[in-house]
Amino acid sequence: MDDELWEKHRSTVENAFDAWQNRLPWSVFRSSPSTRVWGEEAPRAGKAAFEAYLGAPFPVQTPGAHGFVTPERPPTGITLDVAYPHLTADGIDELVAAAGRAWPTWAQATPQQRAGVVLEMLHGLAARSFELAYAVQHTTGQGFVMAFQAGAAHALDRALEAVAVAYHAMTATHAESVDERARIRRRYRPIPRGLALVIGCTTFPTWNGFPGLFASLVCGNPVIVKPHPHAVLPLAITVRECRETLSRYGFPPDLVTLAVEADGDRLAAALALRPEIRLIDYTGSTSFGRWLEDNARQAVVFAEKSGVNAVLLESTADFDGMVSNLASSLALYSGQMCTTPRVLFVPREGIETDQGRRGLDDILASLDAAFRELADDPRRAVALLGAIVDERVERAVDTAMALPNVVIPSRRVSHPEFPRAVVRTPVVVRSDVEAAEWRREWFGPIAFAVPTESADDSVRLWEELATSVGSLTASVYSTNKSFLDQVEQVAATTGVLTALNFTGDVLVNQTVAFADFHGSGANPAANAALVDFGFVAPRFHAAEIRERW
Amino acid sequence: MDDELWEKHRSTVENAFDAWQNRLPWSVFRSSPSTRVWGEEAPRAGKAAFEAYLGAPFPVQTPGAHGFVTPERPPTGITLDVAYPHLTADGIDELVAAAGRAWPTWAQATPQQRAGVVLEMLHGLAARSFELAYAVQHTTGQGFVMAFQAGAAHALDRALEAVAVAYHAMTATHAESVDERARIRRRYRPIPRGLALVIGCTTFPTWNGFPGLFASLVCGNPVIVKPHPHAVLPLAITVRECRETLSRYGFPPDLVTLAVEADGDRLAAALALRPEIRLIDYTGSTSFGRWLEDNARQAVVFAEKSGVNAVLLESTADFDGMVSNLASSLALYSGQMCTTPRVLFVPREGIETDQGRRGLDDILASLDAAFRELADDPRRAVALLGAIVDERVERAVDTAMALPNVVIPSRRVSHPEFPRAVVRTPVVVRSDVEAAEWRREWFGPIAFAVPTESADDSVRLWEELATSVGSLTASVYSTNKSFLDQVEQVAATTGVLTALNFTGDVLVNQTVAFADFHGSGANPAANAALVDFGFVAPRFHAAEIRERW
Repeated sequence: MDDELWEKHRSTVENAFDAWQNRLPWSVFRSSPSTRVWGEEAPRAGKAAFEAYLGAPFPVQTPGAHGFVTPERPPTGITLDVAYPHLTADGIDELVAAAGRAWPTWAQATPQQRAGVVLEMLHGLAARSFELAYAVQHTTGQGFVMAFQAGAAHALDRALEAVAVAYHAMTATHAESVDERARIRRRYRPIPRGLALVIGCTTFPTWNGFPGLFASLVCGNPVIVKPHPHAVLPLAITVRECRETLSRYGFPPDLVTLAVEADGDRLAAALALRPEIRLIDYTGSTSFGRWLEDNARQAVVFAEKSGVNAVLLESTADFDGMVSNLASSLALYSGQMCTTPRVLFVPREGIETDQGRRGLDDILASLDAAFRELADDPRRAVALLGAIVDERVERAVDTAMALPNVVIPSRRVSHPEFPRAVVRTPVVVRSDVEAAEWRREWFGPIAFAVPTESADDSVRLWEELATSVGSLTASVYSTNKSFLDQVEQVAATTGVLTALNFTGDVLVNQTVAFADFHGSGANPAANAALVDFGFVAPRFHAAEIRERW
Repeated sequence: MDDELWEKHRSTVENAFDAWQNRLPWSVFRSSPSTRVWGEEAPRAGKAAFEAYLGAPFPVQTPGAHGFVTPERPPTGITLDVAYPHLTADGIDELVAAAGRAWPTWAQATPQQRAGVVLEMLHGLAARSFELAYAVQHTTGQGFVMAFQAGAAHALDRALEAVAVAYHAMTATHAESVDERARIRRRYRPIPRGLALVIGCTTFPTWNGFPGLFASLVCGNPVIVKPHPHAVLPLAITVRECRETLSRYGFPPDLVTLAVEADGDRLAAALALRPEIRLIDYTGSTSFGRWLEDNARQAVVFAEKSGVNAVLLESTADFDGMVSNLASSLALYSGQMCTTPRVLFVPREGIETDQGRRGLDDILASLDAAFRELADDPRRAVALLGAIVDERVERAVDTAMALPNVVIPSRRVSHPEFPRAVVRTPVVVRSDVEAAEWRREWFGPIAFAVPTESADDSVRLWEELATSVGSLTASVYSTNKSFLDQVEQVAATTGVLTALNFTGDVLVNQTVAFADFHGSGANPAANAALVDFGFVAPRFHAAEIRERW
């Protein structure tokens, strides 16, 4: 039965690994929510499934939980009120014990058996794409299409990528060897590291959560999923699907459990310090990421913290294309992406363009026009901007708006569908090279424009920023070969994913499974990449028995 | 030129990776010191090269060093008096700066270019096999043949294994991809993590030092080699060869540097805390290994600490072969191996054998006879036992000899060639299940025999030991299928490299490059394996640039 499952999914896993090696965009899961792709019924059924969760206890059991908690505060303003089993610090003993009891049969299963079951989970989640998309939309504030793509299809592609690389790493050596000369038979097996913890984030609960969850799981580790209290539902649906799939194939469902806390419970910290927890996947603030690295010493911590991403303008052959691309990058999901550009370095003397020399003021004027146009078209605006995820981000926008040199103000947009949603276009602040404000992390529709002495000076500032604070992405516009060589040097020492001359609809914020590495581990923004060997290898060990005859 | 070098060594690296996947013993380097293999001249020249070092300044430059230090105290009792540049804490700034200056050209070289140069180093070291073997013999006390094999050929095989797996991991994804549809060209390159530190041990300076050294180097990281002050020469020769090879191919020699301290300088600790140090490979005591893990937080620490290795006797079809194999395992290099069996669990009611039921007393009597016979044949004894490496180990033997239930005393043997060498056969102490003495780490010719309630009880004790203290190896004798299944379960949860029914000349202490994993990371004895992906993947990051056209 298990081997049938592996045979069913084997080519997908092998093709995924080939795609990872080839580094071209590749996808197994349907990323368009169109009825032309799905038919009429699936969207309706997905919406109904989502609505069935509202105001009701979520159908999942959590060992150690007592009572219920309804921690979500939808940025779309709808009433969600899904009640989840409430896990507090008092229940952790029971949860960890349950995961420990579930572990042995999963640990003893072969990588093939586990990969077969995990692929069933991914396909099961793909079948719930609409359900997931609504859950992501209403917990994160993303526009529906983005929630469908990033929250379901692309998250599943990243999961498959992680599973394929982990599977490859586990099976790279033969499982047995026979040394006829020395009369030694050797058997090898990858063995799991231990209990894994996934700490979810509020903006991309599935996209950032899936790779670690499924990589740990396929390597034989039980996983506790601790969602951000404001973005539980997407991961609750995920855990439910995982548990049902495990049961269907004869494995204990407690291999994947859901740990939901109320705001302020500090459950992640309590879980992370348990000696049984040997793997932690975390996405979120730098401060808690550092805390985990400093304190969860018994675990390998994969932390995607955040950084400050730079844009370097040196010259362009397509000024309009550049500005339009920049405007979209700054606006996409209200700048609430760890990959959003945050600081624009523009040489004081301006840049050469196809429209002649353009200075910072020209660029800002063009960006302002783009944001104004966006604000004037609420339907388009909310598709791109989504909604502000929480009050913390809204306060950050207000803080930026109160800075001395606001050159483009944030504008409020009324959401045509969700009147209580907060929608704001980006604020841009002009800042000095010496200022501290653009060197610290901001989250939301906030950017800084910094005039520099020269394009070379921009490179220097960028390198300093990436090295000290960290960056996940950089965007560079230049038609100058020797400048681009300089840029490439910095990209190669800092490991910042660098986009050159992005115009049109491909945005620096977006990375593609199998083609793009997300994070590199080479600067403080993250300590691993989605997905490299470093992301999967620590999730298992090599065990060997050798027998003489 | 560099590409020629890669083409020269390419098939070796590729064949090495195939061998690693196939998991059969494989070797590139000559492990016999026989003149039939080497001719008449090489042994003589190697000896002369070794002797030329004696009583002279060693020909290596170390940035930041001032004056000289002669810290070695040969266990063979010869006068070594090699003077090395003395690095103290005051010189670390200069050393680190020199490594940093050397870094860029090496970081920018391709994996192929670096692998070509590293393979030249390995072949250069192989040509110095006799020189290395004498250096290992006189700094560690190993017998010459063992020093030749473990210190040169097998160490180089382990190095090649690490290089091949690291090279494969770095080049597993294509270096470029062209997405015609989206008009994006992507370029990828593995980028080094940072400055690496290798902290050498006193017993196997090359075997334990080479894998980390060359894995870090091939991934583009500069390496500082900090030998144990009593076993400098083998690593000094290594660093010299690395530096000469780097210079020959146009790279700065300071990519590999030698940091020699005097006893008690605590240089390793001072180096390990430098923020520039991002990789540490360490072999040695558990206490300093834990200190590194707890304090060198900026670095990835690969620590092979030590543990307590168990032997489980349940039954055997070859009693004499079992006892003879056990005696050799306990005696090999005077028990000064991290893989030496330390505690023998024997069921109180004895075990079934081809000679009828045999109890603990019978087994001890046979071991005693084997050690007595060994002591009576000093040539054979010193070939197997080598010499006691230092006073610390000698004191440990005396401590064990003073325990209440010594059942086999350690006997002194006069070394026929090196009269000042301390040579002692193993002491065996009978101990209770409840006693603490066999649960702690000992180093040297010291073993404990523990009667257990039953063979099942032995398994329970073994699992507890491996989980709490850690074990690198275990040796099990049984003809009972269901018992062996139990053993296999424990091996698979603890990751202890387990040998079943080893008789004859294959010893549990010995692991073979490409076939055996040394360490697993799954228990406290070590946190990585020689060599798995986990050992190489953290030494580099993935960097990417993407360009639209």
